[in-house]
Amino acid sequence: MNNIVQSGYKGKIYPVNPKEKEINGIPCFPSITGIPGKVDTAIFSVPAGKVLDIARECGAKGVKNLIVLTAGFKETGRAGAELEKKLLSLCEQYNMRLLGPNCVGFIDTHTPINATFLKGFPPQGEIAFISQSGAMLAAILDWSRLAGIGYSKIYSLGNKADLNEVDCISEAADDPNTKVILCYIEDVSCGSEFLKKVTQATLKKPVIILKSGTSQAGAQAASSHTGALAGSDLAYNTAFKRCGVLRVYSMSELFDLAIAFTSQPVPKGEKIAIVTNSGGPGIIATDKVESYGLSMARFAKETIDELRLNLPPEAGIYNPVDVLGDARTDRFKFALETVLKDENVHSAAVLLCPVAVTEPLETAQAVVELNKAYPDKPLVAAYMGGPSLAEGAKVLSAGGVPCFTMPEPAIAAMAGMSMYRKLKERTAAEITVTDFKPDQKTVKAIFYDVKRDNRLALLGSEAAEVIAAYRIDTIPTVLTHSPEEAAAKADDMGYPVVLKVASPRIQHKTDVGGVKIGLKTAGDVKSAYVNVMENVHRYLPKVIPHGIEIQKMAPKGIELIVGMSRDVQFGPMIGFGLGGIYVNLLKDVTFRLANGITVNEIKEMISETKAYTLLKGYRGDKPVDLEAVSKVIRRVAMLAVDFPEIMEIDINPVFAYEHGVAALDVKITLS
Amino acid sequence: MNNIVQSGYKGKIYPVNPKEKEINGIPCFPSITGIPGKVDTAIFSVPAGKVLDIARECGAKGVKNLIVLTAGFKETGRAGAELEKKLLSLCEQYNMRLLGPNCVGFIDTHTPINATFLKGFPPQGEIAFISQSGAMLAAILDWSRLAGIGYSKIYSLGNKADLNEVDCISEAADDPNTKVILCYIEDVSCGSEFLKKVTQATLKKPVIILKSGTSQAGAQAASSHTGALAGSDLAYNTAFKRCGVLRVYSMSELFDLAIAFTSQPVPKGEKIAIVTNSGGPGIIATDKVESYGLSMARFAKETIDELRLNLPPEAGIYNPVDVLGDARTDRFKFALETVLKDENVHSAAVLLCPVAVTEPLETAQAVVELNKAYPDKPLVAAYMGGPSLAEGAKVLSAGGVPCFTMPEPAIAAMAGMSMYRKLKERTAAEITVTDFKPDQKTVKAIFYDVKRDNRLALLGSEAAEVIAAYRIDTIPTVLTHSPEEAAAKADDMGYPVVLKVASPRIQHKTDVGGVKIGLKTAGDVKSAYVNVMENVHRYLPKVIPHGIEIQKMAPKGIELIVGMSRDVQFGPMIGFGLGGIYVNLLKDVTFRLANGITVNEIKEMISETKAYTLLKGYRGDKPVDLEAVSKVIRRVAMLAVDFPEIMEIDINPVFAYEHGVAALDVKITLS
Repeated sequence: MNNIVQSGYKGKIYPVNPKEKEINGIPCFPSITGIPGKVDTAIFSVPAGKVLDIARECGAKGVKNLIVLTAGFKETGRAGAELEKKLLSLCEQYNMRLLGPNCVGFIDTHTPINATFLKGFPPQGEIAFISQSGAMLAAILDWSRLAGIGYSKIYSLGNKADLNEVDCISEAADDPNTKVILCYIEDVSCGSEFLKKVTQATLKKPVIILKSGTSQAGAQAASSHTGALAGSDLAYNTAFKRCGVLRVYSMSELFDLAIAFTSQPVPKGEKIAIVTNSGGPGIIATDKVESYGLSMARFAKETIDELRLNLPPEAGIYNPVDVLGDARTDRFKFALETVLKDENVHSAAVLLCPVAVTEPLETAQAVVELNKAYPDKPLVAAYMGGPSLAEGAKVLSAGGVPCFTMPEPAIAAMAGMSMYRKLKERTAAEITVTDFKPDQKTVKAIFYDVKRDNRLALLGSEAAEVIAAYRIDTIPTVLTHSPEEAAAKADDMGYPVVLKVASPRIQHKTDVGGVKIGLKTAGDVKSAYVNVMENVHRYLPKVIPHGIEIQKMAPKGIELIVGMSRDVQFGPMIGFGLGGIYVNLLKDVTFRLANGITVNEIKEMISETKAYTLLKGYRGDKPVDLEAVSKVIRRVAMLAVDFPEIMEIDINPVFAYEHGVAALDVKITLS
Repeated sequence: MNNIVQSGYKGKIYPVNPKEKEINGIPCFPSITGIPGKVDTAIFSVPAGKVLDIARECGAKGVKNLIVLTAGFKETGRAGAELEKKLLSLCEQYNMRLLGPNCVGFIDTHTPINATFLKGFPPQGEIAFISQSGAMLAAILDWSRLAGIGYSKIYSLGNKADLNEVDCISEAADDPNTKVILCYIEDVSCGSEFLKKVTQATLKKPVIILKSGTSQAGAQAASSHTGALAGSDLAYNTAFKRCGVLRVYSMSELFDLAIAFTSQPVPKGEKIAIVTNSGGPGIIATDKVESYGLSMARFAKETIDELRLNLPPEAGIYNPVDVLGDARTDRFKFALETVLKDENVHSAAVLLCPVAVTEPLETAQAVVELNKAYPDKPLVAAYMGGPSLAEGAKVLSAGGVPCFTMPEPAIAAMAGMSMYRKLKERTAAEITVTDFKPDQKTVKAIFYDVKRDNRLALLGSEAAEVIAAYRIDTIPTVLTHSPEEAAAKADDMGYPVVLKVASPRIQHKTDVGGVKIGLKTAGDVKSAYVNVMENVHRYLPKVIPHGIEIQKMAPKGIELIVGMSRDVQFGPMIGFGLGGIYVNLLKDVTFRLANGITVNEIKEMISETKAYTLLKGYRGDKPVDLEAVSKVIRRVAMLAVDFPEIMEIDINPVFAYEHGVAALDVKITLS
């Protein structure tokens, strides 16, 4: 009550309590039902046992929104989860939306309203903060008082029984008072919703997410904290990439970026100029430019000439520009303006150390002015020091130039803004391609047979037929049941051929002598058939193979893997990388979401693996057919999306040739 | 003068100036010569043009130490470098040591003396700070006033004409007032000195270095700043590892670690316990535990039972321990003491968010007391918030418990301390093994011939002989000059054989048809000889091969690479990794310094590469002879140390077998 009243909320406030006559000087009602007017939102701060009854009263009264601060729901175990379910179905019944339970509430500095039990009301600002941890909100608000950071909205998600991170991100994306959206989450409530709506949000404004539970121990801690099945961290990464979310890995990054986004424009490119009065910090910043994915601008000849003409001979006139320790404001100002004028410069950072003649305050004023004069080129500053720079730092911050104490976070913030531009361009440009109509009937028929057999794993011959139905080039594989049949089929397909034992129960066929390669005659095939059966019987006496598969030997190509696995939250993910025995060894596999995979994403997948070096033509080899490789990825994705019952696909190897590809060994498992 | 006087220096101070009668109320001398008593140290704050004359006077007067603040030396170009050289030789002539020139001076808070022109004198503390950037010292001192950080000594290195980082690190290592040594450098002055003396220093106390110029652009900026040849960043990494230096990559890490080291003991192991009043920060910290190389302690059964018995049922009783948002001091205290008592816990972190009933101040007092009660188990805290936690944070810092605002740096600091323990144990345990006396005579004879031929590259047969002289198992390679000779030699060694064109000018022999493998008869060898010569002539008409080398075909093993290249600062570095065509593709190569390489380092090299997965026996294969592999590494290192004229060694592949190894293709280049 105190918080709501003090926040200056302009609407009508009705305290409800059966025992009190008035609260904060406002007349109190014994129950919701007794309130004369309409009620939009009810804020619950009552024992858990009373929540259901009061929610029912709210429903009857026509209340639209519930904010339930009360704890004692899902987070406490089974009984609490049951209670939460009942609360949610009440909300559904009466068409009410619910924030919480077990949350610290909601703040809107522009309405204004502070419907939380947190201490203090933050100043107005353009940051929306959404947090799955209530305590973290308390910490952040307290810390922001020191740092002078303002907010537009603050959402505490609590147990996310109804409203979740996606709802809040979407609302904040449409909120004219919000410029950047920060989010701390431990899981997402619904992967597909997240993908759809957050992609729309990032096109409107930056969404920066700190998702914890990245490590195994952390994921364990998260799942015991929220009771949620979090999905793999890899899947989160692919999903965030898809949506254009900026992912950060620490709380300080979250705020460094937020400050940059609220005060500066997004840079039009990666090229940054650094102006410093000290060599050391200039070098440190330059190191970070490269490692954070920006690049040092190369100045135009005129810029260099102008710097050379006007700076002392010992000054650094290339990037970083070192205006030297004896630089006063004029020299800083001249150098900064000169590089900002340069077309090759997209952004700039000013680094200042407090040496003898430095004028931190006047220099700050000059930097702020230049920032206004060149509004398209974002600026950040690192004022490296303490009390002697405090006034100057304040002028910078007040003037909208993000000011840090160390050079590293200044560069990191600019790099994050630049990354947002790239992500946004990508998200905006995404084009999904479907180039043909697959033969789903064949696939359905095969799955029907497999299920009738009570199997989950397809035989190699079946799997090959499935991918062939999606026009993935594969080497025909035929299942045979006797040495004679094998020899006859081999005669049909032509030599040399490969024999492989057909059994979904055998993982590594080679290890049990279940594969014979390079067979050149019908006689070879017959004796190999017998030999393979003997080997398998010796190693795995309990396994009775379905027979033996014959495949014509394919010419050797570059071995790739294309695979699919399903994440509980984000659905099928497609993997691509170097194949053969190197898959496990090198882990050179990259992933994207199958759903709505785009031409660009497939290009990125291929080019970000080490396999790419081989595919482009390694040491004089001809490059392979990248178009054919990308078709395999695309079509495996289609297959995975069309048939949700496929749990896993593993094509290893796919041979890539100068012309075309061939899928050699295909494993498909159903769920 | 002001700084010296105000620092409370107790020795005699003589201002020297030809124009003044007195400075700061102290009588002034027109020249050094006129001073009545003995002078230990002279501090130069005069124009560059006067430095030489005054230095000569100092020498004549018997001054032992010069601190030259004056700029205008090496950093300004050729003339300045000349002046610096003269200054240095004057110092050598008169047996004087020199700090600078172009430095900001020297501070010792215990003597006390402030011989810098920096603003402000830092409080006493146990941190020695050594910096190659004067401006950074100004920044750090100013910042430290805010952060309340004290120092024992501060050294500004300037141009390092005489005294350099190694001298200062060594002095600080022996200084009883210093507990931790921080260092910012852009290069080292002498690699071999650094290796020798810094290793001794790190055994005494932690040495933490921020070395800039890690990126290509940064290295360029550094070299234009200091004019020094910095050596490769890779070499710095291997050298720091060797010496036991803790390398950090940002200024904030430098200080986070320093604070931890000065106030807490080094943990006895990696296992950390986390006590938090909020789930979210607990998960974030847990994530970092894993990624920074610590591990979450697994509590003993008694610990878990005690926590279960005494904490509320919703509390997290495994690690991280979540004492819940309504925890007051007693609950924090109980949980922290319970986990500190546990033998499986080596260190602990307390995370506190300011929720309703939190008692930041009282909790801080309890934490400080517990820290005293368990002095062997280091503690760090993250007080996440602002003004409402400030008092508590002050109590923690004053009580010697490092207190951070975010959980991430708290965990990072503990991880750094744990890493120091590991590095120190390793450095202390280093044993270099030399297991035999190599046949240097053969190597000298071969090098003699190569030099007489005016060649730099050895032929394959020569290179094979060189490594055989160091008892590296290789496949004998014979140089032949005609088809008939080749056939005869092949008959001698037995079939099958490989033919390779012998020419140091051909880099990739296979690409020009210069290699024939699997030759089984004398006839095959003869025709292959002719064929190879024809191929080479066709592709490279200007190259006249020395002949053709014959080698018996080795059975296929796991392909490894062992190589050596020389760094300008740190000398020969040995590389090891996956060989064959994968070297460039996968870059799975790790490096160590050849000089003084130890058994442990070689073990680390082998086990930190991806090759290790193969070497241990991949998917049912037998493991290879790791002892034989490590001998190759050790002996290549010996060879590189014994013969400084070897610029590069490249053995690719070395085949590794179940028993023994075989070096197949050896390239050696002289300088």
